[in-house]
Amino acid sequence: MTDQTPDPVLAHALSRRSELLAALTALIACPSVGADPAQAPGMEGARRLVEARLTAMGFCALQRLEAGGQPAIYAERMDAPGRPTILVYAHYDVQPPEPLALWRSPPFEASVRDDRIHGRGASDDKGPMLIALEALAAFIAVDGALPINVKILIEGEEETGSPSMPGLLAAHRDLLDADAILSADGARWRPGLVSINTGSRGNGGFEIAVRTASKDLHSGRYGGVTRNALHVMADLIAGLHDADGRIAAPGFYDDVPDLTEAQIAELAAIPVDMDAHLAEIGAAPFGEAGHSTLARLWLRPTLDVNGMWGGYTGAGSKTVIACEAQAKMTMRLVPGQSPSHARACVLAHLRASLPEGATLDLLADRGWSGANAVPDDHPLLLAAEAAMHETTGQIPVRVRIGASIPLTELIETALGIDTVMFSYATSDEDYHAPNEFLRLSAIDEGLAGWVAVLRRIGAQDAAEYAPFRR
Amino acid sequence: MTDQTPDPVLAHALSRRSELLAALTALIACPSVGADPAQAPGMEGARRLVEARLTAMGFCALQRLEAGGQPAIYAERMDAPGRPTILVYAHYDVQPPEPLALWRSPPFEASVRDDRIHGRGASDDKGPMLIALEALAAFIAVDGALPINVKILIEGEEETGSPSMPGLLAAHRDLLDADAILSADGARWRPGLVSINTGSRGNGGFEIAVRTASKDLHSGRYGGVTRNALHVMADLIAGLHDADGRIAAPGFYDDVPDLTEAQIAELAAIPVDMDAHLAEIGAAPFGEAGHSTLARLWLRPTLDVNGMWGGYTGAGSKTVIACEAQAKMTMRLVPGQSPSHARACVLAHLRASLPEGATLDLLADRGWSGANAVPDDHPLLLAAEAAMHETTGQIPVRVRIGASIPLTELIETALGIDTVMFSYATSDEDYHAPNEFLRLSAIDEGLAGWVAVLRRIGAQDAAEYAPFRR
Repeated sequence: MTDQTPDPVLAHALSRRSELLAALTALIACPSVGADPAQAPGMEGARRLVEARLTAMGFCALQRLEAGGQPAIYAERMDAPGRPTILVYAHYDVQPPEPLALWRSPPFEASVRDDRIHGRGASDDKGPMLIALEALAAFIAVDGALPINVKILIEGEEETGSPSMPGLLAAHRDLLDADAILSADGARWRPGLVSINTGSRGNGGFEIAVRTASKDLHSGRYGGVTRNALHVMADLIAGLHDADGRIAAPGFYDDVPDLTEAQIAELAAIPVDMDAHLAEIGAAPFGEAGHSTLARLWLRPTLDVNGMWGGYTGAGSKTVIACEAQAKMTMRLVPGQSPSHARACVLAHLRASLPEGATLDLLADRGWSGANAVPDDHPLLLAAEAAMHETTGQIPVRVRIGASIPLTELIETALGIDTVMFSYATSDEDYHAPNEFLRLSAIDEGLAGWVAVLRRIGAQDAAEYAPFRR
Repeated sequence: MTDQTPDPVLAHALSRRSELLAALTALIACPSVGADPAQAPGMEGARRLVEARLTAMGFCALQRLEAGGQPAIYAERMDAPGRPTILVYAHYDVQPPEPLALWRSPPFEASVRDDRIHGRGASDDKGPMLIALEALAAFIAVDGALPINVKILIEGEEETGSPSMPGLLAAHRDLLDADAILSADGARWRPGLVSINTGSRGNGGFEIAVRTASKDLHSGRYGGVTRNALHVMADLIAGLHDADGRIAAPGFYDDVPDLTEAQIAELAAIPVDMDAHLAEIGAAPFGEAGHSTLARLWLRPTLDVNGMWGGYTGAGSKTVIACEAQAKMTMRLVPGQSPSHARACVLAHLRASLPEGATLDLLADRGWSGANAVPDDHPLLLAAEAAMHETTGQIPVRVRIGASIPLTELIETALGIDTVMFSYATSDEDYHAPNEFLRLSAIDEGLAGWVAVLRRIGAQDAAEYAPFRR
């Protein structure tokens, strides 16, 4: 089915490229921002479009799975007895579009420019999700069946840390039982470099408020005699890291493993110039002293303030001493790290750093998933690598991602299976930022990759997965 | 005219108390927020109400004075040849009302509760302005003339640092020429303590932006390898002060005079417990080490961040590394300090503190007026003290205010005359904060005080002021 002979399934999928683009345009038009309660209609719109497509493709058992949060969409086709059963994962929710002023076209109107389709969710994860679905649809359309057993799970809480997913997995453990997960989320690491992700960092965070008085105060009437919540918050944030860029919370690194010599060598062999990449986006290299850029990105934890605010932020000037300041912060965690230990260390450090006359409130707690790594010899990883080699002619480099796929660890815990990430997004596509886009070339590449990997898995026996199930 | 005999002018003024309250209600209903361009109609509405009242009172030469910014309102009555000519100052603009959620009644709807009238501008400066105007009106209504010569200047830029006032003063130097200024702005220092202000701190500030990249970045894809603008801004703000609460900018204190032994003794004799006052508003004492609370408030400079923001500040979570952070900051300056030196020191310190890979932009520059002090034996100060003694039975304590009245220094420079502050607001009335109010008792007290001070000045000779004119 490789080389000279055109693959009829792939040919069919490629012939429906414009339908795929139209479907992506319609899906981008649904503002499915799970973080914003006002966007509930956008979430529902996205769900209905996905459900309609699954039905049209011929999937069975279509249903919504709910556990108190955003519903996930489930469907299946169990066409291949004896072959592996793969849970295909994607998500229909997107990041908030703010700051809106920086978008060159509206975030929820797809705009094709320079061989790219722009719009919130184009790259994360609506485009890659549709590529996976259209590859599956092509098998059903051409062969009348899939070469493997497929269960589809498309969630709506990926961008908000999948809060109800543990409950959902617990409630539907049998329905979701599979040999492994093939995820349409994640991203190819670098344009032009054929690579495969073998691990991701964990994630967790909280939102805090600092208070210094019962009301805002006039900076003339009180300036010099009491605390300013903005200064206290700045001190707390400035104290999160030491001068070497290490997280200053005592005990934080207790369960962070040192890099092995083998890991250091492996990272050094990866053909990438991160510093040049940073220069392209106007950023300078900076991070924990004593580690390479790739080590900092994949195998070292981080702590970032994602938003902070307080006092008067409107037009002009207001001579006020703010009584309250707020900050949202998140961490990235590495394999070996306990999310609850990391959380406790940072909160204790913040509280210990608080000066007299100020109080700290924990306003929200979000995420808290551990890091993940797929075993080196996992059959789904091998199938994915073979499919990439087949469709690109290159042996993929094994890389990690610094970001987090909460479902990966949730499933490891709940279902006892591993995840291989097989997204055709690319990491420079400004997801989580203004002007998110997906390269149009990803569509043909992705359809070829998904058709190839589904055929490779179809050549495996379900029993090959047994040693990797926990 | 004191003691037993009822003052017919005061009696007339007191009889119009309800008209004064109605006028204040109408003026509060004009959202005259000069800082917010969207509130231009509120500014114009306030101007028209003031102009209508001045016309009805019988003032002459009513006109708007403009120099590229918000117009000021001018009027005069030169009824008393040989007597002093006093420029009566007030302002019709108000602070922004934010945060709106904390107001218990709408900021631009006057609400009388607990013997207080609530609303933005009730205390700063619409109430005190109307008290002064109604006292003047009573003289004209009862006597047909004022006992002194009065020029009225009601500006619209007090809350935004009076940017066009220097040009306005230069253009109308002859029109505004007077022996001294009696200001209806400022505030009585403490409820129950008869006091008079003899000086104010200067003010100045700017708004800065820190940038670390050309766009916001995903905290997973970039976390650990580049700078976060929010961390850089927090470091800059944390570095504004040293561990002793002193402003850390090198050279900043070069022109700040040490307190004299006499000043320290004078402050110690003032009957006030600032720490108890702070406890009432949920705040703790804090400030520059080695100085008393009153010294910190009146005779030591301060530097406060009034607002800071950056990154994602909406609902929920967004795992972003912000490329930009902004902050508004202002200083309070003491007599002897050069505003331009203070500004240069703080900006140089911020720039020197900026790490590699970050840039700092100065977005706006506001205020920059020096501190002010009225001479101990100034005839207008003596007249004001006598009037307060007469109407309260107590000798007023000479105090300063930690806040700034930019016009004071502008006039000192432009017209060469001094200002005495004679407002019947009180410093605890939450101006510059939600739920601003004016005590209703201030109306009777203020009308009595203004009638008395106008009579005292009417007993002075214009020549007494000559030694104090520069």
